[in-house]
Amino acid sequence: MLSTEAVDRSRWVVSFGSGDCSQSELLGGKGAGLAEMTSLGLPVPPGFTITTDACRAYVANGGQLPEGLMPQVVASIRDLESSAGKCFADPENPLLVSVRSGAVVSMPGMMDTVLNLGINARVAEGIARRTGNGRFALDLHRRFLQMYGNVVLGVDGARFEEIVQDQQRRAGVLCSADLDCDRLGYVVTAFEELISEDTGRQVPNDPWVQLECAIQAVFESWNNRRAVEYRNFHGISHDLATAVNVVAMVYGNLDDQSCTGVCFTRDPATGSRKIFGEYLTNAQGEDIVAGTSTPRDISHLAAEMPEVYRELSDIAGRLEGHYRELQDIEFTVEQGKLYVLQTRAGQRSAKAAVTVAVNMADEGLITRDEALLRVNAGQLDQLLLPTIDESERVKARAEGRLIAQGLAASPGGATGIVAFDADTAVDLSGQGIKVILVRPETSPEDVHGMLVAEGIVTSRGGTTSHAAVVARGLGKPCVAGAERLEVSPARGYLRGRGITVRDGEEITVDGTTGEVFVGTVASTTPDTSGEGDLSRLLQWADEARRLGVWANADNGKDAQIALDMGAEGIGLCRTEHMFFGSTRLSLVREMILSAHGLSRNPDDPDMRGRLKESLARLEEFQTSDFVDIFNVMDGRPVVIRLLDPPLHEFMPDYDELLEQVVELRTRGTDLKSLAEKQSLLSVLDELRESNPMLGLRGCRLGLKFPEIYAMQVRAIARAVSKVSAEGKKVQPEIMVPLVAHGREMARLREALESTIKRYMDDTGAEIEYKIGAMIELPRAALTANEIAESAEFFSFGTNDLTQTVFGFSRDDAEAKFLKVYLEDEILPEDPFKVLDRRGVGQLMRTATMLGRHTRPDITLGICGEHGGDPSSIEFFHAEGLDYVSCSPYRVPAARLAAAHAAIKAASASGSNAPADSTSAQARATNGVAC
Amino acid sequence: MLSTEAVDRSRWVVSFGSGDCSQSELLGGKGAGLAEMTSLGLPVPPGFTITTDACRAYVANGGQLPEGLMPQVVASIRDLESSAGKCFADPENPLLVSVRSGAVVSMPGMMDTVLNLGINARVAEGIARRTGNGRFALDLHRRFLQMYGNVVLGVDGARFEEIVQDQQRRAGVLCSADLDCDRLGYVVTAFEELISEDTGRQVPNDPWVQLECAIQAVFESWNNRRAVEYRNFHGISHDLATAVNVVAMVYGNLDDQSCTGVCFTRDPATGSRKIFGEYLTNAQGEDIVAGTSTPRDISHLAAEMPEVYRELSDIAGRLEGHYRELQDIEFTVEQGKLYVLQTRAGQRSAKAAVTVAVNMADEGLITRDEALLRVNAGQLDQLLLPTIDESERVKARAEGRLIAQGLAASPGGATGIVAFDADTAVDLSGQGIKVILVRPETSPEDVHGMLVAEGIVTSRGGTTSHAAVVARGLGKPCVAGAERLEVSPARGYLRGRGITVRDGEEITVDGTTGEVFVGTVASTTPDTSGEGDLSRLLQWADEARRLGVWANADNGKDAQIALDMGAEGIGLCRTEHMFFGSTRLSLVREMILSAHGLSRNPDDPDMRGRLKESLARLEEFQTSDFVDIFNVMDGRPVVIRLLDPPLHEFMPDYDELLEQVVELRTRGTDLKSLAEKQSLLSVLDELRESNPMLGLRGCRLGLKFPEIYAMQVRAIARAVSKVSAEGKKVQPEIMVPLVAHGREMARLREALESTIKRYMDDTGAEIEYKIGAMIELPRAALTANEIAESAEFFSFGTNDLTQTVFGFSRDDAEAKFLKVYLEDEILPEDPFKVLDRRGVGQLMRTATMLGRHTRPDITLGICGEHGGDPSSIEFFHAEGLDYVSCSPYRVPAARLAAAHAAIKAASASGSNAPADSTSAQARATNGVAC
Repeated sequence: MLSTEAVDRSRWVVSFGSGDCSQSELLGGKGAGLAEMTSLGLPVPPGFTITTDACRAYVANGGQLPEGLMPQVVASIRDLESSAGKCFADPENPLLVSVRSGAVVSMPGMMDTVLNLGINARVAEGIARRTGNGRFALDLHRRFLQMYGNVVLGVDGARFEEIVQDQQRRAGVLCSADLDCDRLGYVVTAFEELISEDTGRQVPNDPWVQLECAIQAVFESWNNRRAVEYRNFHGISHDLATAVNVVAMVYGNLDDQSCTGVCFTRDPATGSRKIFGEYLTNAQGEDIVAGTSTPRDISHLAAEMPEVYRELSDIAGRLEGHYRELQDIEFTVEQGKLYVLQTRAGQRSAKAAVTVAVNMADEGLITRDEALLRVNAGQLDQLLLPTIDESERVKARAEGRLIAQGLAASPGGATGIVAFDADTAVDLSGQGIKVILVRPETSPEDVHGMLVAEGIVTSRGGTTSHAAVVARGLGKPCVAGAERLEVSPARGYLRGRGITVRDGEEITVDGTTGEVFVGTVASTTPDTSGEGDLSRLLQWADEARRLGVWANADNGKDAQIALDMGAEGIGLCRTEHMFFGSTRLSLVREMILSAHGLSRNPDDPDMRGRLKESLARLEEFQTSDFVDIFNVMDGRPVVIRLLDPPLHEFMPDYDELLEQVVELRTRGTDLKSLAEKQSLLSVLDELRESNPMLGLRGCRLGLKFPEIYAMQVRAIARAVSKVSAEGKKVQPEIMVPLVAHGREMARLREALESTIKRYMDDTGAEIEYKIGAMIELPRAALTANEIAESAEFFSFGTNDLTQTVFGFSRDDAEAKFLKVYLEDEILPEDPFKVLDRRGVGQLMRTATMLGRHTRPDITLGICGEHGGDPSSIEFFHAEGLDYVSCSPYRVPAARLAAAHAAIKAASASGSNAPADSTSAQARATNGVAC
Repeated sequence: MLSTEAVDRSRWVVSFGSGDCSQSELLGGKGAGLAEMTSLGLPVPPGFTITTDACRAYVANGGQLPEGLMPQVVASIRDLESSAGKCFADPENPLLVSVRSGAVVSMPGMMDTVLNLGINARVAEGIARRTGNGRFALDLHRRFLQMYGNVVLGVDGARFEEIVQDQQRRAGVLCSADLDCDRLGYVVTAFEELISEDTGRQVPNDPWVQLECAIQAVFESWNNRRAVEYRNFHGISHDLATAVNVVAMVYGNLDDQSCTGVCFTRDPATGSRKIFGEYLTNAQGEDIVAGTSTPRDISHLAAEMPEVYRELSDIAGRLEGHYRELQDIEFTVEQGKLYVLQTRAGQRSAKAAVTVAVNMADEGLITRDEALLRVNAGQLDQLLLPTIDESERVKARAEGRLIAQGLAASPGGATGIVAFDADTAVDLSGQGIKVILVRPETSPEDVHGMLVAEGIVTSRGGTTSHAAVVARGLGKPCVAGAERLEVSPARGYLRGRGITVRDGEEITVDGTTGEVFVGTVASTTPDTSGEGDLSRLLQWADEARRLGVWANADNGKDAQIALDMGAEGIGLCRTEHMFFGSTRLSLVREMILSAHGLSRNPDDPDMRGRLKESLARLEEFQTSDFVDIFNVMDGRPVVIRLLDPPLHEFMPDYDELLEQVVELRTRGTDLKSLAEKQSLLSVLDELRESNPMLGLRGCRLGLKFPEIYAMQVRAIARAVSKVSAEGKKVQPEIMVPLVAHGREMARLREALESTIKRYMDDTGAEIEYKIGAMIELPRAALTANEIAESAEFFSFGTNDLTQTVFGFSRDDAEAKFLKVYLEDEILPEDPFKVLDRRGVGQLMRTATMLGRHTRPDITLGICGEHGGDPSSIEFFHAEGLDYVSCSPYRVPAARLAAAHAAIKAASASGSNAPADSTSAQARATNGVAC
């Protein structure tokens, strides 16, 4: 809150003629726009703005209008009167005004406005007399009472509507414009009675009192609940405050030569270059919003009022040229005379954003850097994924087909047959049937099912659960943590909101909204017609950015997608994802059981043999997987992470097996099967951990069971040899996960190098490679200088780092407490989505500094979920990382975000001024530096 | 490794007359001692020392004696000849020597020695001639062959013993001293044959070759496996190397006027002031060690050789005075002439350490600070706990009663009847029966059983598992993680090493060694006769230390123990430990179920009522518990931690309940019970977490279920009022656990303060309190400045901080990988026992700095397991913390360790020299700065 002392008390009010658009902090976005248009000589009705300073003073004074304000308002009204040639509160030639809120940052629909202010019974009579149009006068009075009663006195708006609709019903008409004078007169009386009954108060007759109360009401609306929540949600400062615009009324509802409308300077859906909009004849602005009449397409205006249309087109062109941005313009025509009431940057679809930005740059209206900044990186997802049709969604809801509302874990929509386990999903998909995999939660064991599914639904886990992370990586829709959904794989059904869906039935998942529907809800496949524009924009982004953009991919197919999306390397290839599929999984289990057996009894020759055999067979699979990826990436770097997850993730589920054992034991029939299962259960019990995230995983596996990493590294070496022999280049980078101590890294480096050396000695091959560390534990960051002694690169695993820095389990946090934390604003953001700069970021900075201290040319990347988040990318750019790696489908957004970061950083250092978020926000409202 | 370039090649050898005890780095401990005694004029046989430089050069040269060494040795032998009046390798008047290893740091029994070197058949004949004692000559030859064959040529020592024993059997004698010449002659021949058969080599006849090979063998022994392991275990540098002492032989085995012995200057068991030791007539030193003859108590020497005894007493006094430390002296008497062969600081029991230190200070021999430094803080445990008798343990092992070897999780010994669950333990204990609680692992649910048990055994979990931590807190013996022990509570047995123990049978647990025995093994209760000395020493410690020592205690009884042990406050009162006991536990479960229900459906009036009711009843219990503690602590600070553990820890075990449900379901008989259990199971499932350590616990509980903390704080306020009303002072400090973000702390502070204010307003009471944060997550440390805004104190929870900094789950790490890490030296120490200064310590330093930046007078303590660890305490002192808090029974050790830290820090800053660990270790060998 600014100190009221600092405010210039002589200037609570600024007339449209003396402001301009650089003053939006003081005048609000709308006020600054009106002032700017006035100074451009556009036909704006006369008016003035009560400043945001006044609003802040009002709030600071505990809801008292600041001293001196009303006298200045009165003086300004006098100026208005002389411009308009009418007189406020004078029944003979009455001036009516609108009182509109106008915040610095646009908060559409959040705050209040009163139109037609200054009317009372006597003034209405005067208007009727002067215009010869009694119906018009009554209509104005009715509109005023409705808005004032609602906004200033707090009467529920619906109750006014009921009265109007009742009269329409009685009159047999569909629209208030068709009510005759009698009925309108009745409505006015009924409104007055409603207000009096509901509030015990009356609408003041005195226009000056009306004005003062309306100004106060607009100020109050700054802190109404929905406005506060909106600002919280969008991260807008509560100190910005709202201005109030008082404008002479012009009447779109005066007659058939009058109308009101909105238009965009380009098509906000496609971005194409033509005026786009709609209007309503004989109406005021709120009639369009209310949707009670159907407005006509703007193209009809050319026929109806050709002069007006020409002037409007001309003004639209001038405003776009002036603001260098797509404009959303409100206008009113009063008896053939055009007035512009507002202009602002227009909302647009992702597709339009891209096309408009590219076109404007081509037209020379904006620079390429500006074009890049005009497109929000987050929007790009919409361009690349199928989405549920909005109208179909509404219909499906209305039909009661919504069975669950979970977390929007991975965007996009898909329809398919329900499969409750990965194997069924694979079977069905093999028959060409589209499936949706539905599980209580997923684990790496389910990945082969996820690979073939169209979409995924889980009843447990947050937006950073296994299901969500894998789905995003695969670019598949996912709804996670649909907690009220009962999922019973054992009995083959899911149930929610009273609806039961069984095996073989169809559902639709919308990962953009978190909804799950029974049956089909149609979705739109991505409209790639604007692809040319997108790819040009992304080329510009590539030229602008410094940060490399790599992708996470675990197989050749994903690597190809990554490449198509513009990835410059693979920043994370999770070898464990190659361990799934039924043949492989049984080998992995054999490997685990024998390695575990050996760790208990190192001299068991049988176990030794079984381990050797399973590793040898797995090595073949891994080698061929690496060959695929290296072939695709042809010379680009590929970071391969050695085995990371706790081993029990590869084993059958403990609880399920326990159930089987108890069942068999209780029945007492099949003793052989019982004995087998019991023995497996006891091994699973040994493998179980209280906190697997903090357990035997990552490099701890590599150090405890050296054979496993040796096998993986041999597979890499063999794949490199094979692909190199075909004349391709290969740049393998071997990454050791979950390092906490320099000595872990030193030991493993030694072991891995000696394995590769042995391979080279045996085969005569020459293999170039790097070995590096995944920095995902606080201790690794704090001792990065020691780790860098054995690591040629670091890749920050920000998911795990966030887990340990906060002590938040990624799998549990969202459902258990993080939702509450975000709702109650204990945390500003979900740290698994937007990097926590104070904590996690601080450790990254430490690690970057220490790592470079030991090894100045160390390569630094990041491969956590944050690698695809624009705000986090900005931080990574600022911290001087070399690249980010994200899911293939997020690569375009990351390229754009990286460009944004570079452009913003350059402009901040160029202007040499710290970024002022308020004025930046203010500029953003109109996308303009005017 | 020192560079060999740096070594002065002219000085590989130093004679006893030209060295002193300041040179132990160069001469080894033994060599320096011999040199020092020589310079003091004590009767030391002539000799010289081959330096550690020579050994390092030998190792660096790949096992080649450094150039110039042997010529210097030859020259030194010449000097020896002239001192001794004998001639090396000369059969006419032969000089024999001993070749003894002598490392810088004592490594008793780890390295090699050859006595009687220089003998061969001709030399032996010469000795026989000269002494007129053929048997003596044969005995020397036999002894030489045995040691040389073993040490230099590597023949198994047992095979020599077999030959000797065979001859003893044939001769019908019990001791080699009683073998006649014929038999000794046969033994010499048999030894030579054995060596030749076994190694294909012969013992060299040439004494010079013998000497060179023996020197080499001693150098080699520096890197033999047991020596390397010993150094690893004790953290001794592998670069120190060993010296070799070559000493003219004196013969305790010459006749009955000859003997050999060891003596301590004070009683090493009790510390009392009298010479203590034993000797063997007509013997060499190794006969005492071998235990083949029974030595006589030193007191008999006074009668047998009064002159010698007087001289020995005199020398003992001089050496103790000179070294200002209890000495362990080796001596030999040859025909009535006393020789001193070695002196070093004597090992002693904990009791003796205390008594000797206090007495020496009283005698003015050492300062009080030195007295404090003479007692190892870790030893104090022995003084305060019952311990298993060593001889009884050996017997029990021999009887095959050892059923498990687990981790030594909490020291002390105890015997009792096996109880497999907490309730049974409580029942039996109520009947006056001593019990040992045996569980696969423990959870807070078992605490009421642990409270009444004599000792605890678990088959899972490490030395920082729940069982271990609680047991140490209670001062009860605990063996944890006895992995090979099969524990089946359901079927009422435990089984290990083929022995099955059932309900109601007796076992003995030794938490000092990790052993579990079936039946009784007698233990000694603490010998508190030296208590006067201990309490004086601890008073001195209190005067010397700066760091406060507080204790962790959860009830009045423990608080009383803490106070008796000298605690100055309660640094951690875990309120959840008050939640056990069957009445309370069912209330806690009711509270959890209703709070959980409300979080899903906030408007359920039934749930609301149940929550209120259970909280009200728990509040009564908590209030009375707090009253007890406040009463005991009477004005001293009491830090009360609000509820911390994940709620499912209070609930029935999921797997057990699942088993019951499946069993009931399979049987299909008791549907009512099935439905009940199923519904509970589904709630447990909702409460379950993948990684509970990182889940809904700590302040997250307080923020999600505000009623719980409000109840706890109200209970504190009521208890304060009550105790204050009785005229006592109360200093409650309310601690919020698991804070990660300043906003969590701010919110909770506001909520807790308003609860207390409401209580004060309602009752008119005035309550003084502090509110602080437990710093146990990396993010809390990194943002401690923000947290300190709402916290008047910090207490570092180093257990959890270590977990998250390393990403190690405390419950799993030890068994799953930490054991491997420590064995393979990937980690130097268990970070859950000894604070990791580089990682965890660095974050503590950051937090300390940031916390003090915000609030210069913030109180900083630490309440993790490390609060009782001497090495960690040294760090906490250096970091400027205000206090440590540990288990009541570790308070004395902590007081002493805190004094050590202060004294060492003062002396380091006084001498202004960085601590040189090598010379510090060297000095420590003789406890002396000579």
